[in-house]
Amino acid sequence: MYRTKTCGELRLTNTGETVTLAGWVQRIRKMGGMTFIDLRDRYGITQLAFNQGTEAFEQANALGREYVIQVTGTVIERQSKNAQLETGEIEIDVQKLTVLNAAVTPPFTIEDETDGGDDIRMKYRYLDLRRSCVRKNLELRHRMAFEVRRYLDQQGFLEVETPVLVNSTPEGARDFVVPSRMNPGQFYALPQSPQILKQLLMVSGFDRYFQIVKCFRDEDLRADRQPEFTQIDCEMSFVEQEDVLNVFEGMSRHLFKTILNIDLPKLPRMTWQDAMKYYGSDKPDTRFGMTFVELQDIFHAAEAKKPEEERFSVFATAKYIGGICATGCASYTRKQLDQLTEFVRRPQIGAKGMVYARVEQDGSVKSSVDKFYSQDVLQAVAKEMNAQAGDLLLILSGEDTMKTRKQLSELRLEMGRQLGLRDPKKFSCLWVIDFPMYEWSDEENRLMAMHHPFTSPKPEDIPLMDTDPASVRANAYDMVINGVEVGGGSIRIHDAKLQEKTFEILGFTPEQAQTKFGFLMNAFKYGAPPHGGLAYGLDRFVSLFAGLDSIRDCIAFPKNNQGRDVMLGAPGELDPIQLDELQLDIRKSRPQ
Amino acid sequence: MYRTKTCGELRLTNTGETVTLAGWVQRIRKMGGMTFIDLRDRYGITQLAFNQGTEAFEQANALGREYVIQVTGTVIERQSKNAQLETGEIEIDVQKLTVLNAAVTPPFTIEDETDGGDDIRMKYRYLDLRRSCVRKNLELRHRMAFEVRRYLDQQGFLEVETPVLVNSTPEGARDFVVPSRMNPGQFYALPQSPQILKQLLMVSGFDRYFQIVKCFRDEDLRADRQPEFTQIDCEMSFVEQEDVLNVFEGMSRHLFKTILNIDLPKLPRMTWQDAMKYYGSDKPDTRFGMTFVELQDIFHAAEAKKPEEERFSVFATAKYIGGICATGCASYTRKQLDQLTEFVRRPQIGAKGMVYARVEQDGSVKSSVDKFYSQDVLQAVAKEMNAQAGDLLLILSGEDTMKTRKQLSELRLEMGRQLGLRDPKKFSCLWVIDFPMYEWSDEENRLMAMHHPFTSPKPEDIPLMDTDPASVRANAYDMVINGVEVGGGSIRIHDAKLQEKTFEILGFTPEQAQTKFGFLMNAFKYGAPPHGGLAYGLDRFVSLFAGLDSIRDCIAFPKNNQGRDVMLGAPGELDPIQLDELQLDIRKSRPQ
Repeated sequence: MYRTKTCGELRLTNTGETVTLAGWVQRIRKMGGMTFIDLRDRYGITQLAFNQGTEAFEQANALGREYVIQVTGTVIERQSKNAQLETGEIEIDVQKLTVLNAAVTPPFTIEDETDGGDDIRMKYRYLDLRRSCVRKNLELRHRMAFEVRRYLDQQGFLEVETPVLVNSTPEGARDFVVPSRMNPGQFYALPQSPQILKQLLMVSGFDRYFQIVKCFRDEDLRADRQPEFTQIDCEMSFVEQEDVLNVFEGMSRHLFKTILNIDLPKLPRMTWQDAMKYYGSDKPDTRFGMTFVELQDIFHAAEAKKPEEERFSVFATAKYIGGICATGCASYTRKQLDQLTEFVRRPQIGAKGMVYARVEQDGSVKSSVDKFYSQDVLQAVAKEMNAQAGDLLLILSGEDTMKTRKQLSELRLEMGRQLGLRDPKKFSCLWVIDFPMYEWSDEENRLMAMHHPFTSPKPEDIPLMDTDPASVRANAYDMVINGVEVGGGSIRIHDAKLQEKTFEILGFTPEQAQTKFGFLMNAFKYGAPPHGGLAYGLDRFVSLFAGLDSIRDCIAFPKNNQGRDVMLGAPGELDPIQLDELQLDIRKSRPQ
Repeated sequence: MYRTKTCGELRLTNTGETVTLAGWVQRIRKMGGMTFIDLRDRYGITQLAFNQGTEAFEQANALGREYVIQVTGTVIERQSKNAQLETGEIEIDVQKLTVLNAAVTPPFTIEDETDGGDDIRMKYRYLDLRRSCVRKNLELRHRMAFEVRRYLDQQGFLEVETPVLVNSTPEGARDFVVPSRMNPGQFYALPQSPQILKQLLMVSGFDRYFQIVKCFRDEDLRADRQPEFTQIDCEMSFVEQEDVLNVFEGMSRHLFKTILNIDLPKLPRMTWQDAMKYYGSDKPDTRFGMTFVELQDIFHAAEAKKPEEERFSVFATAKYIGGICATGCASYTRKQLDQLTEFVRRPQIGAKGMVYARVEQDGSVKSSVDKFYSQDVLQAVAKEMNAQAGDLLLILSGEDTMKTRKQLSELRLEMGRQLGLRDPKKFSCLWVIDFPMYEWSDEENRLMAMHHPFTSPKPEDIPLMDTDPASVRANAYDMVINGVEVGGGSIRIHDAKLQEKTFEILGFTPEQAQTKFGFLMNAFKYGAPPHGGLAYGLDRFVSLFAGLDSIRDCIAFPKNNQGRDVMLGAPGELDPIQLDELQLDIRKSRPQ
């Protein structure tokens, strides 16, 4: 061992001890007859003191940042203590210094507040990881994964590794594929999730399965997506929805308690319908209220009383009119309101415009549509929205209820951000339940499974499968924290007849269903138990706990938006011999 | 929840309770007025009793094997108790039976002693996994992985996930590759091990890293190799060999204690030289002795005294003559001895022949080479080999010491097997240390790194790098259990000059070294700590603990010798659209 202590553990009680430390030179301060060095390792920083006239002093003065050194000396009390440092009451009076490795100057400073931009830090990710703010995210990730395993183990779950080299999945995103040298012309696929394998493990009687597992999707990467990501994947047998929710609410409670020392209250449950109605999102950020109030009845009634030529055509024809009440924001300037209007009109959001109304101190309502509506109508609106003097009302409208709700949701989140209501250190968790079984796809011109084709309907909604399939609710659920879907799952169909019916609704002929899903359906014939489960996104879960905006900083070696690892230089060209062995040719016409 | 209890937990103390169980029908026995069913789940088997005249009785008689059912009834004491079953003192007097799912007859019996062959069981692996003897191996795997994590976490190791989509590694086995759609013509590689990434994490100051991680090698599969396998991968900073051995000896001790309740003694250490000399293997099975005795001096001295024409040319020209003493085997018949001769002459072993000698009850030695050697010589041999009356001496010879030792090692293992000395329930663990740095490759006509090119030499052997590189010993070590290498690693080179020197010995020009290893060498310039580590093969570790011959049965969904998952049907053909997206063509001339 090159050390007797780490750089994080010495205290005043160690005074007088002779110790050996090893680590990296964080900072050198030359103060005339003394030189001080901050020595850094994973565990902390310890100050080293070198006295003029010693050999170590001369050596110390020749060091540079990030040199790896080993020192032996005596722990002494510091004269000027540093309350910021856990070791700030002591320093080492160094007698012996050994340079273990020299270092060239790093391309950016190894400090929490670094001078390095994103690109250079990704290229030298191994130096970026030296920064304690980055390393702490990975320590948190380790701790969370460990506590997940501890909890699930205690609950009788078995971690079973499923293969990485599998086959292409039907009905999913695009697969990454792996050519097989031993079976030329054939390919493995990397799993998008172990969905089918975990259901097979239920058929096998494993009863309670989990796995913290890498999954892969070859998607065009939007911000904050990674081609490889990590799931906490779980499945249970002989359970109903309530059982799954209880076990995994318990897991979240365990994590919040052991990692953040937060006592999580019993999670509220919100139906998907309510989430859409009041938040315009299936993953509502419930750290703050500002819930939607529907105003189409009030405005349509007002319109109906007016002569045609006085009508406000935007509201008159809108199928949906909804507003949010921003408490105390009546003081927003015209400029701020214009910026909000611009915000909702951005192409990504797509609203045509925004109506606002201020509740003045005297209770009167001043709006951007004063010329269309009487004070009575505006008062009725303010009352419906429970607005008080000093509040600001923001109203969107549109032909398409769902689209308008989503626009209003973006506006709500933006207002929450502006008002500081989205504190990353505050947590609001809930279950969103009763998702619809199906959603209409304009692209495919058919109903699609909202969750996946094995999701079971609510028993009481089964008759609706014949009469109104779009209204059938599923035994599907998401765990949402601070507006982020951290996990989701469903109770699966284990009954062959019900499975056939849902394939029919999804527009598959029996032959197509057999081709796409026959393998699992065949396995179910040998005795499938009732089962269900869910999967958490570990990257996202950790980034929430760390208070990060991006999942990237809780991944040791992430890829960029082009799917490249710029540090490793992956992907790269192959040796022609490898292509020969795989019997593959790269098309010459490929875009350069 | 579909049950109030599992099938493994009811005891006599539960008598009188009303319980609900769910599981699979293992066996149905119709005994006139009564029908008995063994109900199975992951936790055990519970007997259900149905009385004639009840509705449940009629239902029970209509069930088949592997039906999934739910029953409610009363726990009663059994009349004929079954001591083999943990629940064998009770049964359930069933009042209500619900069929949760019917089952077609499985293609083989779901019993520990099944009638299904390997192929059918692999095709229906999800049914094979129902057999408790198979499932228990995966339960063991879960427990071992969990205890590994618990131990390493306690020792301050952080589990860090490294990427699966990386770049091709220099100097390794063949990589599996993944075409990148977003970067046409470029490929990722799947990691053969996270070697470089874990060394980078040491450069990052992570200090203690581990990961239980999938690794991939596209090799021609010999028996008991899998294209994807799982490593317990570990690395530590500021350590010397002794530190690594201590930490991981501790890990093994923890596993043996917590999993098998075995107190592992301090592990003996054997140099690679001794392992080769006494066992002919760098992974000696030390459950039994039968160590090699070198006999060339005795035989060569005897030959030297004889006239040319009386010489036994096989021994006279052999550079190496070695024997093992099989205690009490003088009674081996001529047929048994012929079979042993055939065994060593198999092409996989490649010996030309075998000499044997029996020590008779009167102390005389009768050998297959009596006509060449006097009793005096044979007595000297017996004495050298410490043979007693009743023992059998088996002797191999050859031009190539190492090759002959390996042949003798195979013979020793076969004798150990025949004599029942290789009990899978008995464990003998040791460290093999002081591996050579380099080994000569006839194929490449140069010295190759025996471990890998970053392995450090023993400091005292560094001068030999100039004068006799083949004799340089490395800071490399393997953990061997029962003749199986379960783990191995080394202290790495962290000094740039020493690294250059070893590349030179490996025959790389500075330019070649830069091309192949420049990335890591460049990272080291920013301050690399002394570091080292090792990796365990989890599959092999589990199979040892389970007493299995093959790693396959401790893998949930293994691949066959052609690298195929016959259950999933992977690998398979791609949709032409996928090839278009990847800009790839499959060569038409490929072998069909």
